[in-house]
Amino acid sequence: QFVEEVLFFPDAQIACKEFFVGDGCRRLNCRFTHEHNSLSRLYTFLADAKQSLDVCVFVICCADLGDLLVTAHKNNVRVRVICDDEQIDITGSQIWRLRKEGIPVRTDNSSYLMHHKFVVIDGTHLLTGSFNWTRQAISGNQENLVALRNMRIVSQFSSEFEKLWKEFDPK
Amino acid sequence: QFVEEVLFFPDAQIACKEFFVGDGCRRLNCRFTHEHNSLSRLYTFLADAKQSLDVCVFVICCADLGDLLVTAHKNNVRVRVICDDEQIDITGSQIWRLRKEGIPVRTDNSSYLMHHKFVVIDGTHLLTGSFNWTRQAISGNQENLVALRNMRIVSQFSSEFEKLWKEFDPK
Ligand SMILES: [Zn+2]
Ligand SMILES: [Zn+2]
Repeated sequence: QFVEEVLFFPDAQIACKEFFVGDGCRRLNCRFTHEHNSLSRLYTFLADAKQSLDVCVFVICCADLGDLLVTAHKNNVRVRVICDDEQIDITGSQIWRLRKEGIPVRTDNSSYLMHHKFVVIDGTHLLTGSFNWTRQAISGNQENLVALRNMRIVSQFSSEFEKLWKEFDPK
Repeated sequence: QFVEEVLFFPDAQIACKEFFVGDGCRRLNCRFTHEHNSLSRLYTFLADAKQSLDVCVFVICCADLGDLLVTAHKNNVRVRVICDDEQIDITGSQIWRLRKEGIPVRTDNSSYLMHHKFVVIDGTHLLTGSFNWTRQAISGNQENLVALRNMRIVSQFSSEFEKLWKEFDPK
Protein backbone atom coordinates (compact mmCIF):
# COMPACT_ATOMS: atom_id res chain seq x y z
CA GLN A 1 0.00 0.00 0.00
CA PHE A 2 1.44 3.31 -1.14
CA VAL A 3 1.45 5.87 1.68
CA GLU A 4 2.44 9.52 1.34
CA GLU A 5 5.64 9.73 3.32
CA VAL A 6 9.12 11.23 3.45
CA LEU A 7 12.40 9.38 3.19
CA PHE A 8 15.40 11.10 4.71
CA PHE A 9 18.99 10.14 4.04
CA PRO A 10 21.75 9.29 4.87
CA ASP A 11 20.99 5.76 5.99
CA ALA A 12 23.35 4.41 8.65
CA GLN A 13 23.79 1.20 6.63
CA ILE A 14 23.10 0.13 3.05
CA ALA A 15 19.89 -1.91 2.77
CA CYS A 16 20.24 -5.46 1.36
CA LYS A 17 18.55 -5.48 -2.02
CA GLU A 18 18.23 -9.27 -2.12
CA PHE A 19 16.51 -9.29 1.26
CA PHE A 20 13.93 -6.60 0.49
CA VAL A 21 13.10 -7.03 -3.19
CA GLY A 22 15.05 -10.06 -4.37
CA ASP A 23 14.66 -13.78 -3.83
CA GLY A 24 15.83 -13.44 -0.23
CA CYS A 25 19.35 -13.00 1.08
CA ARG A 26 21.43 -16.18 1.26
CA ARG A 27 24.68 -14.59 2.42
CA LEU A 28 26.07 -16.16 5.59
CA ASN A 29 27.41 -12.85 6.86
CA CYS A 30 25.57 -10.19 4.93
CA ARG A 31 27.34 -6.83 5.15
CA PHE A 32 24.09 -5.02 4.26
CA THR A 33 21.28 -4.34 6.67
CA HIS A 34 18.02 -6.32 6.83
CA GLU A 35 16.36 -3.56 8.88
CA HIS A 36 13.95 -1.21 7.09
CA ASN A 37 15.41 2.17 6.21
CA SER A 38 15.00 4.84 3.54
CA LEU A 39 16.78 2.89 0.80
CA SER A 40 14.74 -0.24 1.50
CA ARG A 41 11.58 1.86 1.04
CA LEU A 42 12.92 3.21 -2.23
CA TYR A 43 13.69 -0.35 -3.40
CA THR A 44 10.09 -1.31 -2.62
CA PHE A 45 8.58 1.68 -4.43
CA LEU A 46 10.54 0.86 -7.58
CA ALA A 47 9.99 -2.90 -7.39
CA ASP A 48 6.24 -2.40 -6.95
CA ALA A 49 5.85 -0.69 -10.34
CA LYS A 50 3.34 -2.59 -12.46
CA GLN A 51 3.16 -0.56 -15.67
CA SER A 52 5.72 2.19 -15.97
CA LEU A 53 8.70 3.91 -14.43
CA ASP A 54 9.43 7.39 -15.74
CA VAL A 55 12.78 8.21 -14.18
CA CYS A 56 14.04 11.79 -14.48
CA VAL A 57 17.18 11.97 -12.33
CA PHE A 58 20.29 14.12 -12.77
CA VAL A 59 22.80 11.34 -12.04
CA ILE A 60 22.30 7.57 -11.81
CA CYS A 61 25.31 5.60 -10.70
CA CYS A 62 24.04 3.30 -7.96
CA ALA A 63 24.21 -0.25 -9.40
CA ASP A 64 21.56 -1.60 -6.99
CA LEU A 65 19.06 0.99 -8.24
CA GLY A 66 20.15 0.32 -11.82
CA ASP A 67 19.44 -3.39 -11.17
CA LEU A 68 15.86 -2.55 -10.21
CA LEU A 69 15.29 -0.68 -13.47
CA VAL A 70 16.67 -3.62 -15.46
CA THR A 71 14.49 -6.08 -13.53
CA ALA A 72 11.41 -3.93 -14.10
CA HIS A 73 12.22 -3.68 -17.82
CA LYS A 74 12.58 -7.48 -18.02
CA ASN A 75 9.19 -7.78 -16.29
CA ASN A 76 7.56 -5.71 -19.05
CA VAL A 77 7.29 -2.52 -17.04
CA ARG A 78 7.84 0.38 -19.48
CA VAL A 79 11.02 2.04 -18.18
CA ARG A 80 12.15 5.40 -19.58
CA VAL A 81 15.07 7.40 -18.23
CA ILE A 82 16.04 11.06 -18.56
CA CYS A 83 19.31 12.25 -17.06
CA ASP A 84 21.92 14.96 -17.53
CA ASP A 85 24.18 14.63 -20.56
CA GLU A 86 27.29 15.54 -18.58
CA GLN A 87 26.70 12.78 -16.02
CA ILE A 88 26.41 9.76 -18.29
CA ASP A 89 30.12 9.00 -18.46
CA ILE A 90 31.09 9.48 -14.82
CA THR A 91 32.48 6.61 -12.76
CA GLY A 92 29.82 4.06 -11.94
CA SER A 93 27.27 5.56 -14.33
CA GLN A 94 24.49 3.08 -15.03
CA ILE A 95 23.42 4.72 -18.27
CA TRP A 96 25.34 2.61 -20.81
CA ARG A 97 24.30 -0.55 -19.04
CA LEU A 98 20.63 0.53 -19.08
CA ARG A 99 20.88 1.30 -22.80
CA LYS A 100 22.56 -2.06 -23.44
CA GLU A 101 19.61 -3.75 -21.75
CA GLY A 102 17.25 -1.92 -24.10
CA ILE A 103 15.99 0.80 -21.77
CA PRO A 104 15.64 4.11 -23.63
CA VAL A 105 17.63 6.92 -22.05
CA ARG A 106 17.45 10.54 -23.17
CA THR A 107 19.53 13.48 -22.03
CA ASP A 108 19.50 17.22 -22.33
CA ASN A 109 22.04 18.64 -24.74
CA SER A 110 22.99 21.74 -22.87
CA SER A 111 25.57 23.12 -20.48
CA TYR A 112 22.70 23.81 -18.09
CA LEU A 113 21.70 21.00 -15.78
CA MET A 114 18.87 18.51 -16.17
CA HIS A 115 18.71 18.73 -12.41
CA HIS A 116 15.40 16.99 -11.60
CA LYS A 117 15.41 14.00 -9.26
CA PHE A 118 11.95 12.49 -9.65
CA VAL A 119 10.29 9.24 -10.67
CA VAL A 120 6.66 8.80 -11.71
CA ILE A 121 5.49 5.25 -10.96
CA ASP A 122 2.56 3.80 -12.93
CA GLY A 123 1.48 7.36 -13.77
CA THR A 124 -0.06 7.66 -10.33
CA HIS A 125 2.73 7.86 -7.77
CA LEU A 126 5.64 10.23 -7.43
CA LEU A 127 9.00 10.28 -5.71
CA THR A 128 10.75 13.66 -5.76
CA GLY A 129 13.36 15.51 -3.76
CA SER A 130 17.07 16.24 -3.55
CA PHE A 131 18.14 12.62 -3.91
CA ASN A 132 20.40 11.61 -6.81
CA TRP A 133 20.91 7.89 -7.36
CA THR A 134 24.42 7.65 -5.94
CA ARG A 135 26.06 5.82 -3.09
CA GLN A 136 27.06 9.15 -1.55
CA ALA A 137 23.41 10.27 -1.46
CA ILE A 138 22.38 7.01 0.22
CA SER A 139 24.96 6.79 2.95
CA GLY A 140 26.68 10.18 3.20
CA ASN A 141 24.65 13.24 2.31
CA GLN A 142 21.67 14.92 3.91
CA GLU A 143 18.89 14.20 1.41
CA ASN A 144 15.13 13.88 1.13
CA LEU A 145 12.67 12.09 -1.10
CA VAL A 146 8.92 12.69 -0.81
CA ALA A 147 6.46 9.99 -1.89
CA LEU A 148 3.19 11.52 -3.14
CA ARG A 149 0.04 10.33 -4.82
CA ASN A 150 -1.80 13.66 -4.97
CA MET A 151 -2.97 13.47 -8.59
CA ARG A 152 -2.92 17.25 -9.07
CA ILE A 153 0.78 17.13 -8.38
CA VAL A 154 1.63 13.75 -9.93
CA SER A 155 -0.02 14.66 -13.23
CA GLN A 156 2.07 17.83 -13.48
CA PHE A 157 5.23 15.75 -13.09
CA SER A 158 3.93 13.28 -15.71
CA SER A 159 3.37 16.15 -18.12
CA GLU A 160 6.82 17.55 -17.39
CA PHE A 161 8.32 14.12 -18.10
CA GLU A 162 6.49 13.85 -21.44
CA LYS A 163 7.53 17.40 -22.37
CA LEU A 164 11.20 16.70 -21.67
CA TRP A 165 11.00 13.27 -23.31
CA LYS A 166 9.93 14.92 -26.57
CA GLU A 167 12.34 17.83 -26.20
CA PHE A 168 15.29 15.44 -25.68
CA ASP A 169 14.43 13.17 -28.59
CA PRO A 170 17.77 12.80 -30.40
CA LYS A 171 16.04 12.50 -33.81
CA GLN B 1 -4.14 31.45 -0.31
CA PHE B 2 -1.60 28.62 -0.27
CA VAL B 3 -2.40 25.98 -2.85
CA GLU B 4 -0.53 22.70 -3.28
CA GLU B 5 1.20 23.13 -6.62
CA VAL B 6 4.39 22.49 -8.54
CA LEU B 7 6.81 25.08 -9.83
CA PHE B 8 8.98 24.03 -12.76
CA PHE B 9 12.08 25.86 -13.91
CA PRO B 10 13.74 27.29 -15.96
CA ASP B 11 11.72 30.45 -16.30
CA ALA B 12 12.04 32.16 -19.69
CA GLN B 13 12.65 35.51 -17.96
CA ILE B 14 13.59 36.62 -14.45
CA ALA B 15 10.58 37.84 -12.47
CA CYS B 16 10.72 41.44 -11.22
CA LYS B 17 11.00 41.30 -7.44
CA GLU B 18 9.87 44.89 -6.96
CA PHE B 19 6.75 44.30 -9.02
CA PHE B 20 5.64 41.12 -7.24
CA VAL B 21 6.67 41.58 -3.61
CA GLY B 22 8.17 45.07 -3.37
CA ASP B 23 6.67 48.53 -3.41
CA GLY B 24 5.95 48.26 -7.13
CA CYS B 25 8.33 48.58 -10.05
CA ARG B 26 9.19 52.14 -11.03
CA ARG B 27 11.70 51.29 -13.76
CA LEU B 28 10.91 52.94 -17.10
CA ASN B 29 12.21 49.97 -19.07
CA CYS B 30 12.26 47.08 -16.64
CA ARG B 31 14.43 44.23 -17.92
CA PHE B 32 12.62 41.76 -15.67
CA THR B 33 9.21 40.28 -16.39
CA HIS B 34 5.95 41.41 -14.78
CA GLU B 35 4.20 38.20 -15.91
CA HIS B 36 3.65 35.47 -13.31
CA ASN B 37 6.12 32.59 -13.48
CA SER B 38 7.74 30.08 -11.13
CA LEU B 39 10.11 32.58 -9.53
CA SER B 40 7.30 35.08 -8.93
CA ARG B 41 5.41 32.32 -7.08
CA LEU B 42 8.49 31.54 -5.01
CA TYR B 43 8.86 35.25 -4.15
CA THR B 44 5.25 35.28 -2.98
CA PHE B 45 5.59 32.14 -0.85
CA LEU B 46 8.61 33.62 0.95
CA ALA B 47 7.15 37.12 1.29
CA ASP B 48 3.92 35.71 2.76
CA ALA B 49 5.72 34.16 5.77
CA LYS B 50 4.21 35.54 8.99
CA GLN B 51 6.16 33.75 11.72
CA SER B 52 9.09 31.71 10.51
CA LEU B 53 11.23 30.67 7.58
CA ASP B 54 13.31 27.54 8.14
CA VAL B 55 15.52 27.45 5.07
CA CYS B 56 17.57 24.31 4.46
CA VAL B 57 19.16 24.72 1.03
CA PHE B 58 22.49 23.41 -0.30
CA VAL B 59 23.56 26.66 -1.98
CA ILE B 60 22.13 30.17 -1.69
CA CYS B 61 23.61 32.73 -4.03
CA CYS B 62 20.64 34.50 -5.61
CA ALA B 63 20.63 38.07 -4.24
CA ASP B 64 16.90 38.58 -4.90
CA LEU B 65 16.07 35.56 -2.74
CA GLY B 66 18.62 36.70 -0.15
CA ASP B 67 16.81 40.08 -0.11
CA LEU B 68 13.54 38.35 0.78
CA LEU B 69 15.14 36.63 3.77
CA VAL B 70 16.58 39.92 4.99
CA THR B 71 13.22 41.67 4.57
CA ALA B 72 11.44 38.88 6.46
CA HIS B 73 14.04 39.08 9.26
CA LYS B 74 13.52 42.85 9.52
CA ASN B 75 9.76 42.23 9.73
CA ASN B 76 10.28 39.99 12.77
CA VAL B 77 9.82 36.71 10.97
CA ARG B 78 12.17 34.19 12.60
CA VAL B 79 14.57 33.25 9.80
CA ARG B 80 17.01 30.36 10.23
CA VAL B 81 19.26 29.04 7.47
CA ILE B 82 21.10 25.75 7.03
CA CYS B 83 23.37 25.27 4.03
CA ASP B 84 26.42 23.30 2.96
CA ASP B 85 29.75 24.36 4.48
CA GLU B 86 31.55 24.08 1.15
CA GLN B 87 29.14 26.46 -0.59
CA ILE B 88 29.30 29.47 1.73
CA ASP B 89 32.32 31.10 0.06
CA ILE B 90 31.41 30.63 -3.60
CA THR B 91 30.87 33.61 -5.89
CA GLY B 92 27.62 35.38 -5.11
CA SER B 93 27.05 33.48 -1.86
CA GLN B 94 24.47 35.27 0.28
CA ILE B 95 25.59 33.64 3.51
CA TRP B 96 27.95 36.29 4.88
CA ARG B 97 25.45 38.98 4.08
CA LEU B 98 22.68 37.08 5.88
CA ARG B 99 24.92 36.64 8.91
CA LYS B 100 25.84 40.32 8.86
CA GLU B 101 22.13 41.15 8.97
CA GLY B 102 21.76 38.98 12.06
CA ILE B 103 20.21 35.89 10.50
CA PRO B 104 21.64 32.72 12.07
CA VAL B 105 23.17 30.36 9.52
CA ARG B 106 24.45 26.89 10.37
CA THR B 107 26.31 24.46 8.14
CA ASP B 108 27.33 20.83 8.17
CA ASN B 109 30.97 20.23 8.90
CA SER B 110 31.58 17.34 6.60
CA SER B 111 32.86 16.45 3.16
CA TYR B 112 29.46 14.94 2.50
CA LEU B 113 26.80 17.27 1.16
CA MET B 114 24.05 19.03 3.07
CA HIS B 115 22.07 18.54 -0.11
CA HIS B 116 18.50 19.40 0.95
CA LYS B 117 16.64 22.15 -0.87
CA PHE B 118 13.60 22.81 1.29
CA VAL B 119 11.93 25.63 3.21
CA VAL B 120 9.33 25.27 5.94
CA ILE B 121 7.13 28.38 6.11
CA ASP B 122 5.33 29.20 9.37
CA GLY B 123 5.71 25.56 10.40
CA THR B 124 2.77 24.67 8.18
CA HIS B 125 3.87 24.97 4.55
CA LEU B 126 6.68 23.35 2.66
CA LEU B 127 8.64 24.00 -0.51
CA THR B 128 10.92 21.14 -1.56
CA GLY B 129 12.55 19.83 -4.71
CA SER B 130 15.71 19.99 -6.79
CA PHE B 131 15.92 23.78 -6.78
CA ASN B 132 19.00 25.48 -5.34
CA TRP B 133 18.83 29.24 -4.87
CA THR B 134 20.98 30.22 -7.82
CA ARG B 135 20.50 32.21 -11.00
CA GLN B 136 21.35 29.11 -13.03
CA ALA B 137 18.52 27.16 -11.36
CA ILE B 138 16.05 29.96 -12.09
CA SER B 139 16.79 30.61 -15.73
CA GLY B 140 18.90 27.72 -17.02
CA ASN B 141 18.39 24.32 -15.42
CA GLN B 142 15.50 21.88 -15.45
CA GLU B 143 14.27 22.09 -11.84
CA ASN B 144 11.19 21.51 -9.71
CA LEU B 145 9.82 22.80 -6.44
CA VAL B 146 6.69 21.31 -4.85
CA ALA B 147 4.55 23.42 -2.53
CA LEU B 148 2.82 21.23 0.08
CA ARG B 149 0.74 21.73 3.19
CA ASN B 150 0.07 18.09 4.01
CA MET B 151 0.87 18.22 7.74
CA ARG B 152 2.04 14.60 7.90
CA ILE B 153 4.76 15.57 5.46
CA VAL B 154 5.43 19.14 6.58
CA SER B 155 5.92 18.06 10.20
CA GLN B 156 8.54 15.53 9.16
CA PHE B 157 10.49 18.28 7.39
CA SER B 158 10.12 20.52 10.45
CA SER B 159 11.54 17.76 12.65
CA GLU B 160 14.38 17.19 10.20
CA PHE B 161 15.18 20.90 10.29
CA GLU B 162 15.25 20.95 14.11
CA LYS B 163 17.42 17.82 14.16
CA LEU B 164 19.97 19.33 11.77
CA TRP B 165 19.80 22.72 13.50
CA LYS B 166 20.90 21.05 16.75
CA GLU B 167 23.43 18.81 15.04
CA PHE B 168 25.07 21.77 13.27
CA ASP B 169 25.25 23.96 16.37
CA PRO B 170 28.86 25.21 16.30
CA LYS B 171 29.05 25.35 20.12
ZN1 LIG C 1 21.45 -9.54 3.05
ZN1 LIG D 1 9.94 45.59 -13.03
